[in-house]
Amino acid sequence: MFEDRIRLASLRDRVMSADDAAKLVGDGMVVGMSGFTRAGDAKDMPLALARRAQAHPMKITLITGASLGHDSDKTLTEAGVLGKRLPFQVDTTLRSAINRGEVMFVDQHLSETVEFLRAGQFGKLDVAAIEAVAITEDGGLVPSSSVGNSASFAILAEKVIVEINLAQPLAFEGMHDIWIPGQRPHRDPLPIVDVRDRVGTSAVKIAPEKIAAIVITHTPDSASNALPPDAQTRNIAGHLIEFFQHEVSRGRLPRTLPAIQSGIGTIANAVLMGFVDSPFEQLTMYSEVLQDSTFELMDAGKMVFASGSSITVSQSVQDRVFGDLARYRDQLVLRPQEVSNHPEVIRRLGLIALNTALEADIYGNVNSTHVGGTHMMNGIGGSGDFARNARMAIFATKSVAKDGRISSIVPMVPHVDHNEHDVDILVTEQGLADLRTLAPRERVKLVIDNCAHPSYREVLRDYYRDAQRYAGHTPHALERAFEMHINLRDRGSMLAG
Amino acid sequence: MFEDRIRLASLRDRVMSADDAAKLVGDGMVVGMSGFTRAGDAKDMPLALARRAQAHPMKITLITGASLGHDSDKTLTEAGVLGKRLPFQVDTTLRSAINRGEVMFVDQHLSETVEFLRAGQFGKLDVAAIEAVAITEDGGLVPSSSVGNSASFAILAEKVIVEINLAQPLAFEGMHDIWIPGQRPHRDPLPIVDVRDRVGTSAVKIAPEKIAAIVITHTPDSASNALPPDAQTRNIAGHLIEFFQHEVSRGRLPRTLPAIQSGIGTIANAVLMGFVDSPFEQLTMYSEVLQDSTFELMDAGKMVFASGSSITVSQSVQDRVFGDLARYRDQLVLRPQEVSNHPEVIRRLGLIALNTALEADIYGNVNSTHVGGTHMMNGIGGSGDFARNARMAIFATKSVAKDGRISSIVPMVPHVDHNEHDVDILVTEQGLADLRTLAPRERVKLVIDNCAHPSYREVLRDYYRDAQRYAGHTPHALERAFEMHINLRDRGSMLAG
Repeated sequence: MFEDRIRLASLRDRVMSADDAAKLVGDGMVVGMSGFTRAGDAKDMPLALARRAQAHPMKITLITGASLGHDSDKTLTEAGVLGKRLPFQVDTTLRSAINRGEVMFVDQHLSETVEFLRAGQFGKLDVAAIEAVAITEDGGLVPSSSVGNSASFAILAEKVIVEINLAQPLAFEGMHDIWIPGQRPHRDPLPIVDVRDRVGTSAVKIAPEKIAAIVITHTPDSASNALPPDAQTRNIAGHLIEFFQHEVSRGRLPRTLPAIQSGIGTIANAVLMGFVDSPFEQLTMYSEVLQDSTFELMDAGKMVFASGSSITVSQSVQDRVFGDLARYRDQLVLRPQEVSNHPEVIRRLGLIALNTALEADIYGNVNSTHVGGTHMMNGIGGSGDFARNARMAIFATKSVAKDGRISSIVPMVPHVDHNEHDVDILVTEQGLADLRTLAPRERVKLVIDNCAHPSYREVLRDYYRDAQRYAGHTPHALERAFEMHINLRDRGSMLAG
Repeated sequence: MFEDRIRLASLRDRVMSADDAAKLVGDGMVVGMSGFTRAGDAKDMPLALARRAQAHPMKITLITGASLGHDSDKTLTEAGVLGKRLPFQVDTTLRSAINRGEVMFVDQHLSETVEFLRAGQFGKLDVAAIEAVAITEDGGLVPSSSVGNSASFAILAEKVIVEINLAQPLAFEGMHDIWIPGQRPHRDPLPIVDVRDRVGTSAVKIAPEKIAAIVITHTPDSASNALPPDAQTRNIAGHLIEFFQHEVSRGRLPRTLPAIQSGIGTIANAVLMGFVDSPFEQLTMYSEVLQDSTFELMDAGKMVFASGSSITVSQSVQDRVFGDLARYRDQLVLRPQEVSNHPEVIRRLGLIALNTALEADIYGNVNSTHVGGTHMMNGIGGSGDFARNARMAIFATKSVAKDGRISSIVPMVPHVDHNEHDVDILVTEQGLADLRTLAPRERVKLVIDNCAHPSYREVLRDYYRDAQRYAGHTPHALERAFEMHINLRDRGSMLAG
């Protein structure tokens, strides 16, 4: 059975139920699971682990690539299994537990997690649970719709549970490029010099005897829950397209644009969708997650190649793409997240990095993670890997949220994920501010006039006038810096008071 | 004349006075000048430019490697020449003008400036003024005690003024390794895989006809003004040595330690000096600036090689080292700052990055630049290049300043240069907090108990207790977050109130 999926015959007797596989995990263990932005996650094993915890209460450190699908984080949270969780999540139930201080969440740059693991910072990795479409003749794992940290988890773990997912097409085989950096201090350069380059192997090589369990699953990836474009995201895309055209006309960007990185979620996906109607051709991506927009751009003949670490798409695009993967085979590569997010490649290729801000301040500092400065949303993800090292770091957001009660432009952000040194371009549906080569005082007028919603411009200008009493390179009136946030917290609107 | 210094005979008729050379600069121009942490700066040309501005008022954009010596920034500020200044400075007079909003200062990661320039973000570079010890037979420039951005300035500028400094020993020749990245999008890897690697040329190759003026100068570099070690920096060094020994014993660091980067200034230099008495041997550096500590460690037989972008030392070490450069020739290399600070190499080598914090908050966010959140001190320099991409980012500071009126540990930093995602280790004379793999709430107790001064611990604990009323991944009471800073601003002490 499963000859095409488990090609090393000696492993076929390790097929067992998810519940039996889950017995490999015990209290206090460090566990790595595949899954990056809901794609390629182990599906049955997390649920079996939650069931097991009913009888055998346990707390583990759970490390993934990024977010999981299938309510796995919810189920594990409710079962009390998560002691520590990293490096990213998007689950409502887990988020609440994090914000109550019940789950310790380490919000980490996505390129760094396996460096920490490799250096022994989390101790040994006890168990890895990895989704694969197949195990090769020599015991190599062929990942599915994401690579994430799966390769390093499988390599570093003492025991590996493989979930062979029959719902994931075998056509994924050959789409991955598995490259793992060598041991420091004499590590070789990462030889990628073009988004299309393949520098590794198509499967993850591990010692077959480490494979302690094989679970057969049939569950497709959770579909993306990104919302479709709307008038505001179309405006954001319009401002960016106009700006890129201007940069091209000044000779500061090539006509095909540098390779693009685009963050997870509704805004970045919808903005990129807007490029279907742009004059740009021959576009490429070097990104983490490939969303609907990637395939829309390919199908529209606008994009010629995309490198990512996962494919996370809506149900309709999943049906279209996963059913016809061979068609995209020459245009796609999936890499480990430390390669997709590697500072070395990001700087070398000179990426345009497009990520979402929760809010930005009048000087261009960006908060991507903490609602009200205190409550974790999802995590920084790869945005810091990209923004620090890219050629151009763009942060996009709608200028207001919650029917205008929240302004995304504020006097001072109460949590800084990306500071003034890294934020090149801010864009909202109102307009775009090019902050490059500007001192903080030069940025204020641009940010307020171009990006803030009209209903907040006067209160922001008033803050800046007041702040100048205290002078400085970056004027602030500290006693008023968070007035808008306190209004929101205590009265439900930033404009109250 | 100057046959050994100006070896291309056809250039010798371009020798002229600094005042004549300064006539090449006019209002509105973009000017690049050599100089990195007071080393290898053009000496006569900036002063001549200030004189010229008396009769011909002008505003220029002045771009350097990093800080200048010889009060050049002061003199240029007083002459009203500086419209815009980047990417780093340390001058009191210039700093005041920046903080009054009179000079627009762009506080930039030191690895990024020439990328911006190369991409056309500042328009064309009109004039470069570069100190050199010699011009080679084919018109190549041999830098002196720093490389900084000099190579790219000379390559990109329309006209080049060369200051041949007879006070800088010719023995600098051969100590530099000039490597410039290729044009994107098909840039090759930076081939450095060991701190000792030489991958470029010993001189800066430019078209000789671009050399519009040669000025002969005789002024030595300004000596470093870093203070010697004291009891507190010795304590900081002691905590770090103990920590490194612990990491080595756990197998998490190699016995010779990874290559070390150490920031400019008193604290980092003095801390590194403490390693003279440590058990560590065969140390190497991959840093920006090489200070007294580098040579003390070499002379003590503790350090075998140092790669930097400049040599900035006290007068006594300058006398000792510059007079006997040949002795250190096999142990030193000076590189362009985009190579010394390149994310690619920093990540590949897995550096220990040691930089100075102005203040840190209880969650591990670091302010390196803004006194009181508003007033620029020096700039972020290379600390962001290193902290984001290094294996281990350490920030050191004394726990209090101004006789205890300022605590370096605060509830929330009012300006974030390095956020919780990047700050691995905080250390003061009180102790060390290893923040790696910890969630924000887990960090608080460590930071307060280990790093804060005893006189501030209770007020910080009180803040955290209060902040938990609002819950969250990172609890904060926004109305109180800057109480200590406001106390300091209005009453002269953080403890007032």
